Amino acid sequence: MILEQVKKTGDIKNIDKKDLPILAEEIREFLIDTLSHTGGHLASNLGAVELTMALHRVFDVDRDRIIWDVGHQSYTHKILTGRRDDFETLRSYGGISGFPRIEENPADAFGTGHASTSISAGLGMVSARDLKGQDYSVISVIGDGSLTGGMVYEAMNNASNLKTNFIIVLNDNNMSISANVGGMHDHLVRVRTSRGYVHLKEGVQSFLEKIPFIGEGMVRFIRRIKNGIKQLVIPGMIFEDLKIMYIGPVRGHHIEDMEKAFRRAREYEGPVLVHVITEKGRGFVPAQRHPSRFHGADPFDKEKGLPLISKKPSYTDIFSTVMRKMGDRDPSVVAVTAAMMDGTGLKRFHNLFPDRFFDVGIAEEHAVTFAAGMAVGGMIPVVAVYSSFLQRAYDQILHDVALQKLHVIFAVDRAGLVGSDGATHQGVFDLSYLTSIPNMVVMAPKNKYELSDMMKWAVLYKDGPVAIRYPRGEACVAYRDERADIKLGKSEPMKTGGKVLLYAIGSMVDVAMKARKILSASGIRCAVTNARFAMPLDKNYLKEAGGRYDVIYTLEENVRSGGFGEHVSDCLYSLGYTGRVGIISVPDRFIEHGNAALLKKKLGLDPEGVAMRIKKEVKSVR
Amino acid sequence: MILEQVKKTGDIKNIDKKDLPILAEEIREFLIDTLSHTGGHLASNLGAVELTMALHRVFDVDRDRIIWDVGHQSYTHKILTGRRDDFETLRSYGGISGFPRIEENPADAFGTGHASTSISAGLGMVSARDLKGQDYSVISVIGDGSLTGGMVYEAMNNASNLKTNFIIVLNDNNMSISANVGGMHDHLVRVRTSRGYVHLKEGVQSFLEKIPFIGEGMVRFIRRIKNGIKQLVIPGMIFEDLKIMYIGPVRGHHIEDMEKAFRRAREYEGPVLVHVITEKGRGFVPAQRHPSRFHGADPFDKEKGLPLISKKPSYTDIFSTVMRKMGDRDPSVVAVTAAMMDGTGLKRFHNLFPDRFFDVGIAEEHAVTFAAGMAVGGMIPVVAVYSSFLQRAYDQILHDVALQKLHVIFAVDRAGLVGSDGATHQGVFDLSYLTSIPNMVVMAPKNKYELSDMMKWAVLYKDGPVAIRYPRGEACVAYRDERADIKLGKSEPMKTGGKVLLYAIGSMVDVAMKARKILSASGIRCAVTNARFAMPLDKNYLKEAGGRYDVIYTLEENVRSGGFGEHVSDCLYSLGYTGRVGIISVPDRFIEHGNAALLKKKLGLDPEGVAMRIKKEVKSVR
Repeated sequence: MILEQVKKTGDIKNIDKKDLPILAEEIREFLIDTLSHTGGHLASNLGAVELTMALHRVFDVDRDRIIWDVGHQSYTHKILTGRRDDFETLRSYGGISGFPRIEENPADAFGTGHASTSISAGLGMVSARDLKGQDYSVISVIGDGSLTGGMVYEAMNNASNLKTNFIIVLNDNNMSISANVGGMHDHLVRVRTSRGYVHLKEGVQSFLEKIPFIGEGMVRFIRRIKNGIKQLVIPGMIFEDLKIMYIGPVRGHHIEDMEKAFRRAREYEGPVLVHVITEKGRGFVPAQRHPSRFHGADPFDKEKGLPLISKKPSYTDIFSTVMRKMGDRDPSVVAVTAAMMDGTGLKRFHNLFPDRFFDVGIAEEHAVTFAAGMAVGGMIPVVAVYSSFLQRAYDQILHDVALQKLHVIFAVDRAGLVGSDGATHQGVFDLSYLTSIPNMVVMAPKNKYELSDMMKWAVLYKDGPVAIRYPRGEACVAYRDERADIKLGKSEPMKTGGKVLLYAIGSMVDVAMKARKILSASGIRCAVTNARFAMPLDKNYLKEAGGRYDVIYTLEENVRSGGFGEHVSDCLYSLGYTGRVGIISVPDRFIEHGNAALLKKKLGLDPEGVAMRIKKEVKSVR
Repeated sequence: MILEQVKKTGDIKNIDKKDLPILAEEIREFLIDTLSHTGGHLASNLGAVELTMALHRVFDVDRDRIIWDVGHQSYTHKILTGRRDDFETLRSYGGISGFPRIEENPADAFGTGHASTSISAGLGMVSARDLKGQDYSVISVIGDGSLTGGMVYEAMNNASNLKTNFIIVLNDNNMSISANVGGMHDHLVRVRTSRGYVHLKEGVQSFLEKIPFIGEGMVRFIRRIKNGIKQLVIPGMIFEDLKIMYIGPVRGHHIEDMEKAFRRAREYEGPVLVHVITEKGRGFVPAQRHPSRFHGADPFDKEKGLPLISKKPSYTDIFSTVMRKMGDRDPSVVAVTAAMMDGTGLKRFHNLFPDRFFDVGIAEEHAVTFAAGMAVGGMIPVVAVYSSFLQRAYDQILHDVALQKLHVIFAVDRAGLVGSDGATHQGVFDLSYLTSIPNMVVMAPKNKYELSDMMKWAVLYKDGPVAIRYPRGEACVAYRDERADIKLGKSEPMKTGGKVLLYAIGSMVDVAMKARKILSASGIRCAVTNARFAMPLDKNYLKEAGGRYDVIYTLEENVRSGGFGEHVSDCLYSLGYTGRVGIISVPDRFIEHGNAALLKKKLGLDPEGVAMRIKKEVKSVR
């Protein structure tokens, strides 16, 4: 096996040219095989095999700095830098990450996870390099999907002033996670399809299409020629307008072509973009056919190309169903997503109500302010975004939505510990950042019925923005009968009695109920109340609870700092409470990757952990 | 006076064409005269007089929706919509805002304040309009400075799919707040300077410059023609690449030209950009010469063009001096700003160390990740941003800086109540959003000496990011002798004794000291401790204080939710404290414009207000 000869960074440079295609196939086989039982980002990695090999052959990866935008396509990079044997531990607790991490390997130049950061980070490194008089190469590898993120444009705008080398590799597979969106995408499609024109020697005319008119004195003759020429030379036009030198399109599964392009790019004194055309899922038919299914995949059957685990309905599925119903009932309801139609469960809504569905691409900032505009125009926008990605839009939620008290609903998916994607994707800050914003209503459901009730309530609540956060994975189906009407800022007491109250929100209600059972067996009686709202808090209930209970525990899947627990504690003590408050939350540090259930256990957020802590602490007050 | 005939929205349509230039001059005079005693955004408004008049003549402003990006250029719009008589109250408490506000007037379609939101909001309104089958026009008016913000690009990328009318007016004055930055700016300069070429009838050749090479088979002949044509037709190229129809450049002080262009734009079935060239500060020589000084100006002398109040040194001035010194001492120190070189006090640093100064334009997201890249490359970046604008970069601070524990220093200016700019600019959330992020160190100085000490400490602290927040305006110069060494997470006790502790941070230390004096006269003895750090908290000190004081007040210029007080309260009670905590903070709502001192008084954040509250509450425990 050629792959056996690649043990550490740089080894690939010694592989014979003719063996490279074999090596590529071996890497693909290794990826398909490994990921079929570990799970992971298959499609994007299969597309980037040759691209990564070419980069590693041209550049000195320990010295030169490659920044992988988003980073989920970095598996081949990890294999080529001595981490192949670690792949059995991929994305599992204590194992290697599914993303580049500075602390994992010196070849990982910059940690990534969220989209569109690589050009900014790369430009920073280039600037540092130049100031220090060093001379390594900096290469930002970015997918076409990430180009919809505004940061890229902010960075390119700044890169255009650069007088020294900076290489941007555009890994263009004509896909973001689902389909691609917008003008930049169309531009790239034109580039891809215009290759024929580029090679034409004569053709300096015709191709009249959409004719813009420029000022008063514009002459028809010039227009005609312009459009002809534009068709001819369009590759890279937009980048050249930004004064970024363009090389391409280059065949992304042809190692020699790419090596040549990268070598050229390395010599240029300025910012240069190499446009590489790749195919997502290449070499594995199921992934080619369903790249979205194999974006971030669970373990799957290699032969059939189907997931191994048949999943129980998730909160995302419930949300999907509710959205369909609400779309039917109320023609004002519109859905907005940022390149996550499948992930957020909006596919059905999209199919049924295509006019009321808006996928804005990876552009969370725009998504939120766009929704604000729609709300002003009389629609009821539901913005479905993952918790950790919504961080991008903190200012827009505050400045454009909440300040104007606009009725925008945020469906915050993947809120809480997401597990194997790790630190960049854990949705454990939204209760903090959302509750810092005045006028927000922030809630979290205990089970699937409550998610449905909350969504319906949110559509009817007209006084401002509402955020509903729910976790990744299987929806809780218990407590079907505990279904009191949703009322603004009202908790739902579920079990009373005893001197200890478990005041839980969202996914932690189930944990509290189970901890209660365990504690009961040890002779500690606990009451359980579902808080429902992190904002506004249920002051009346807390006043009453403060008089009744000696110890009140808050439970949340969010960091402590600025979260639900701190607010409840503040509220209780301000109301004159004299008992004790115990805050059970994710600790105030970044939580690495690993199975979500395992992480919860390690952090004491499972029923046993919660019960054990309470048992220990409550002894002293009993 | 012609201006007398313009009493309400629409009146300008009845003004005779020949009287329009006179009206424009009258508006200018009115603006200069009024703003010379109220203060306000003079330069940008002087530039937009005719542009606004033309918009109001072509569109039906009560029905059609104009969105003013940033919004500080909306004064003429306010004058033309019946608010001229309110200008005496401009930006003062209870008076009209310096920005468009939905609740102020039906002609204000969307509230703005932060840059680059108008196209997203406009596109949202257009989408709502189309879904509802309505037919008003939506016009987003955006300055060239705002084009550096990534949201604009996210929005344009989405606008390109539009099949119905949406008008973007690019108000191009070749300036953002200070000078403009980047490739888009250069592109616009080329557009402006290429007008001559546009009018040329023959010229379909030559002008070879920077020649990009496109793929392997690119032919020299095509290159040559391409560049010739490109020079000819360059206006709007970048917008057309995004399939946004381009009209311009149009003379921005020529009302008829603009009216014609706007009428044309209104007829187009799709997104259209009208490029208008204006002059910032037009009609007032001092503002033309020093547009930055007259960006957001204090009251000034009309004749001399100089500010009426000679200002005492601000925290910004102190920061400016420290940066100069640190730049001298440590060649690794670099400065990053987002279009706020003057506002953040980095001009001197820029002049002395131009290579180490980076103005990235209005692009806070890029600024932060760019700084992260520089930190990885071995530099020590100081990112100087206003508190409310840094909200834009919440995710980048979390995901790119803090997660990787990078040594980036955030100089958070305008933290606290900023006063007359109002709700969009109040810097009252940073203690909440910054302390929700693990690994952050968050501090605030009590006086100018401490700001200097903290900056020096932050440069030496290598373990991760540090944010230092300080308010707008005059720096406190008292407490010169209270200057204990800065130590990570250590408070500074300033006055001891009594059973009541005032535990204050930043600007509120001075308030606490003054409140202490007032209380002392009423027989209530208070201790005062300067917390210095909002994160990490001084647990040892709080443990000790919890044992010694019966009542502990926290004081901060930040909202309560997720702020300093909640953290201190949580910490105290977790440590077993049994006394009372009183949180003195900005309330959890948006705070309108008005004189900052007045606002503090109204919110009980001045020494008298604090003393009065404590007197009332402490009676019961004495």
